[in-house]
Amino acid sequence: MAPRFACIVRFIKKQTIQMTMSEISPPTPRYRRIADMLRLTLASGVLRAGDRIISARKLAEREQVSLPTALEALRYLEAEGLIIARPRSGYFVRQPAASGNEQRAASLPGPVPVTMSAIARSLFGSAEARLVPLGAALPDPAWLPVDALQRALHTAGRRLDARGQSYSLPPGRADLRRKIAARAAQWGALFGADDLIITAGATQALRLALRAVCQPGDAVAIEQPAYFGTLLLLEDLGLKALQIPTDPIEGLLLAPLEEAIQRHRPAAVLASPTVQNPLGASMPVARKQALVALLADKGIPLIEDDVYGDLAGGAQRPPACKAFDRDGNVIYCSSLSKTLAPGWRIGWIAAGRYHSAVLQARMAGEWAGAPLIEAAANEILASGDYDRHLRHLKLRIAEGMRAIITRVEACFPPGTRVAAPEAGFLIWVQLPSRIDALEVHRRALALGIGVSPGPLFSPGAAELQNYLRLNGANEPTPALLHAVEQLGIVCHELAREH
Amino acid sequence: MAPRFACIVRFIKKQTIQMTMSEISPPTPRYRRIADMLRLTLASGVLRAGDRIISARKLAEREQVSLPTALEALRYLEAEGLIIARPRSGYFVRQPAASGNEQRAASLPGPVPVTMSAIARSLFGSAEARLVPLGAALPDPAWLPVDALQRALHTAGRRLDARGQSYSLPPGRADLRRKIAARAAQWGALFGADDLIITAGATQALRLALRAVCQPGDAVAIEQPAYFGTLLLLEDLGLKALQIPTDPIEGLLLAPLEEAIQRHRPAAVLASPTVQNPLGASMPVARKQALVALLADKGIPLIEDDVYGDLAGGAQRPPACKAFDRDGNVIYCSSLSKTLAPGWRIGWIAAGRYHSAVLQARMAGEWAGAPLIEAAANEILASGDYDRHLRHLKLRIAEGMRAIITRVEACFPPGTRVAAPEAGFLIWVQLPSRIDALEVHRRALALGIGVSPGPLFSPGAAELQNYLRLNGANEPTPALLHAVEQLGIVCHELAREH
Repeated sequence: MAPRFACIVRFIKKQTIQMTMSEISPPTPRYRRIADMLRLTLASGVLRAGDRIISARKLAEREQVSLPTALEALRYLEAEGLIIARPRSGYFVRQPAASGNEQRAASLPGPVPVTMSAIARSLFGSAEARLVPLGAALPDPAWLPVDALQRALHTAGRRLDARGQSYSLPPGRADLRRKIAARAAQWGALFGADDLIITAGATQALRLALRAVCQPGDAVAIEQPAYFGTLLLLEDLGLKALQIPTDPIEGLLLAPLEEAIQRHRPAAVLASPTVQNPLGASMPVARKQALVALLADKGIPLIEDDVYGDLAGGAQRPPACKAFDRDGNVIYCSSLSKTLAPGWRIGWIAAGRYHSAVLQARMAGEWAGAPLIEAAANEILASGDYDRHLRHLKLRIAEGMRAIITRVEACFPPGTRVAAPEAGFLIWVQLPSRIDALEVHRRALALGIGVSPGPLFSPGAAELQNYLRLNGANEPTPALLHAVEQLGIVCHELAREH
Repeated sequence: MAPRFACIVRFIKKQTIQMTMSEISPPTPRYRRIADMLRLTLASGVLRAGDRIISARKLAEREQVSLPTALEALRYLEAEGLIIARPRSGYFVRQPAASGNEQRAASLPGPVPVTMSAIARSLFGSAEARLVPLGAALPDPAWLPVDALQRALHTAGRRLDARGQSYSLPPGRADLRRKIAARAAQWGALFGADDLIITAGATQALRLALRAVCQPGDAVAIEQPAYFGTLLLLEDLGLKALQIPTDPIEGLLLAPLEEAIQRHRPAAVLASPTVQNPLGASMPVARKQALVALLADKGIPLIEDDVYGDLAGGAQRPPACKAFDRDGNVIYCSSLSKTLAPGWRIGWIAAGRYHSAVLQARMAGEWAGAPLIEAAANEILASGDYDRHLRHLKLRIAEGMRAIITRVEACFPPGTRVAAPEAGFLIWVQLPSRIDALEVHRRALALGIGVSPGPLFSPGAAELQNYLRLNGANEPTPALLHAVEQLGIVCHELAREH
C-alpha cells in the first residue's frame, strides 16, 4: 500500500489570462457554464476563505448534469486557484475571487513558444559541485542495487565477449525487448517485443516521438506545470507549448484539454499520467481511459511519459494509458533511469501506429546503440533482481518522503503548501507568493544545497516563481534534514526581506 | 610505416552537370581556365585512353602558374573522370572526352537536398542477421581488447560505486577530458580539457556541431563521396549538401571548395581530412593548413570528423586540421568507436569559439551522460592499454586490408578499380559501370554477406551506383576470403546479365 500523508494540500497556480480576441469561440461547454455561475457566487462574497462549498453530488443534482461534469466544474475552479479540495471532505473556498468581469474574460492560454533553456543551463551549470541532492529527480545512489548492476554488466560482458563492445542497431536487443514487453503485459500493455524500440533513455524516446508526429511550429499540449526535460525538447525542436491545467493529485484535466484541442488543435498531447513530474499526480484509471478515448476520437497522438510508473501502486502498479490503446494512438515511453540505473541510458518506446515513423527517426543520424548495456539490462530483468529492488526502493522512498515533508512542514514559513503525492519521490512546494524561488535556489547553492525552482517547469521560465521541487528519494540522514531546515531558514529570511 | 599496396588506382565519379543558368558567375579562376584548355586538347582526340598527359611541373612552367595551381587543374580534370593519376608516374587519359561544348557548360553542382535515408533504412534493416561483416565500418570484434575493456569497466564500477550508476552532466568527466586533451596535444592540438565536451559517440558530436552553426535550409559543404552518417544527419536537420570533389588519395580539393564557397556560401564545411570515409583519403599536412586558413579567412566553420585519425601514420599520427586552428574556427569531433569500443558510445567535441553554442545544444533535451562508461574510458586511457592496442590494431588492419584487396583484384570482373588507402580500413571499389551495386548488395545479402553499396554515400542515393565500400578490418579467415570470392562471382554474373 502506498503511503498517504497526514496533511495533503491541493493547489494549482492561477491560470495566466491570455485570450486571443480574434479567435472564434466555440460554444461554452456545460462544465464551464456551471463554473462561471459558481465563480459569481464566490465573487459575491457570501462565502469566506475556508468555507466549504457545494459538493459535487449536490451540484450535479441541482444543475441536472452528470457527476463527472459537476466534478470538472469544481476542478476547473480549483485550477483557477479559487477553491481547494481536501480528501474525503470536499471543496473549500481558498481566497476571495477577483471581480466577475475579470474572471469572465479569462480563458485557457494558447500555445506559447518555449524559451526556458537559458535558465535551465544556468541552473545545470552548478550541478558539478557536490550538492545536497534535493534538486535533481534521482533516487539516492545508495539505494541503487549497485552489486546487482555490476554483476549484470560482468555477466553480460562475459557472455557477449567482443560483440558486447560493438554497435547495436535499432530496434535493439530482442530478448531485452521481450522482457520489457512481458513486464508491461502485467499492467495490461497491449504491445509485444516487435512493437518496441530501445532508446538512449526516455529522453531520446520522447524526442523521437515528437519528431515522428510534429513539425516545427506545431503546438503540443503539455501538463502545467511540466517536466523541464520535456520543455527543453519542445524548445529544441521548435515546438510550442499548450499548457493544460493539471490537478496536483489527479493529473491532467480532461475538460480544459478538450477545449484546448478544439481551439488550438495541437499536433500531440505529451503527458505523464502516472506520477507526474513535478506534481507527483496520477490520473485515476477511468480518467486514463477517457483520455485515450478522447485522443483516439480526435486523431491526436498521446505521447505517454511513464518513467515513474513502476513506482506507483502496491504489489501491482496501475495501468498506464497504453493499456487502453486499441487504436495504436498512444506512443508509450519509459526507461530504467528513475528506478534502477540512471547512467545506463536504457529507455524504450512502443509507438503503436507511429512505429515506423519513430524507427525512421531513430535511424536518423544517431542510430548506434550500446549492446553491452542492453545485455546487462536484459540480465537484470531476467534475474528477478529488479522486482526485489523495486519493492525495497518503494519502502525507502516512502520513508524518505515522510521525513522530508514533515521537516518542510515544520520549518518553512506559514503559507507554504506541500503536495504530498501517493507515489514517486517528488515534492512540489508552494512558497508564500512573495518568496522568489530563484533567489532560494541561489542562496541554497551558496549553502551547498540543490533545489529545483518553479520557473524551470514553465515554458517561458516566467511563472511558478514561488514554487520549489524537492527530491524526496534521499536517505533522511541528519545532514539531509539539516539541509531542509536551512532551506526553511532561507525562505523565512526572504519572507522577512520582502 | 603504413602499408602501401602494389596497385593503387585513382578515380572519382564524373561530376553531375547541374548549373543554374540564372546565377551570376564570378570570374573563372586560373586553374579552371587551364583545365578548360586541357579539356579541349583531350576532346580533340590527339591523345588516346592510357596516354600520359603533361606533367604538373611542365604545365606550371608553360602556363606560368604555381605548381599547386597546375596540380589543381589536373585534379579538377581527374574529378571529372577525364584523367587518372598513377603514383610516381603522372596523369593518364582515362576515356575520350565528351564534346567541348558540353564540357564547357559543366560546373560544380549546387547545394542539393539530402534524401537518402529511406535507402539507408532499407539497408540497415537487414543488419540484425549475422552477416559476413564486409558492410559496416567496424574493426573485427575479435581485434578489440575485450579483457582490458572489461577490466576498465570493472575498476570504474568499483571506484565509482553507486555514483557510477547515476547521470553525468555536460561537459562530462573532467579527468577523461584531461586525458583526451593530453593525447591530442601529441599531434599538436591546441585545446585543453575545458574546451572539450564528452558526447554519445562522434555522431552526437557532429549533430551538435551542425546544430550550433547551421539553420534548417542552410547548405553544408561535404566531401564527395561522403559518409552516410553525415548525410543522414544533414537530412534529419533539414540541411542541404554541397558536394566538393574529393581526391581518393589526398582528400578534399581546395580549389573547387573555394569556388563552391564563392558561389553558394555554405554555413559550414564538414570533412574528414584524415582517413576519409569511404575513400580512406588523407589530406597532406600543407593542404590541411591551407584548408584551415581558407575557412578562417572566409569565416566559415570547419567541422572536422577525425574518428579514424588515430589509425593514420606510424608511431606518430599526422596532425588533424585542429592543430592549425588559431582562430577557434575548427569544430573538432572524434570518438573511441572506430578504434576501441564502438558500443561504449564515447565521443568528444572541441568546438573552439563555438564551444558555448555546442554546450547549449548538448543541454537541449538529451543532457544526461553515462558516468560509468566515461570512467571506464578514463581508466583505459590512463592504463596505456589503448596505445598498446592501437599498435596491434594497425598491424592487423594492414594484413586484413592486403588480403582482402588481393582477393578483390583476383576475383572481381575486369574494369574493377580499387582505392587502396594508406591508412584506415575502408576499401572503396569501383565496379564496371554496368554493374548495379544495389543489386550486388541484394544478392550478397542472400548469401549472408554484408556490403555497403555506393548510393549510400551520395545525398540523393542516386549516384555512385557502381561503387561498393568494403570493410577491410577483418581477420582474413578462409570464410571471409571465400565471401570476397562470392562477391566477385555475383559481380561477374551481373556483368554478364547486362
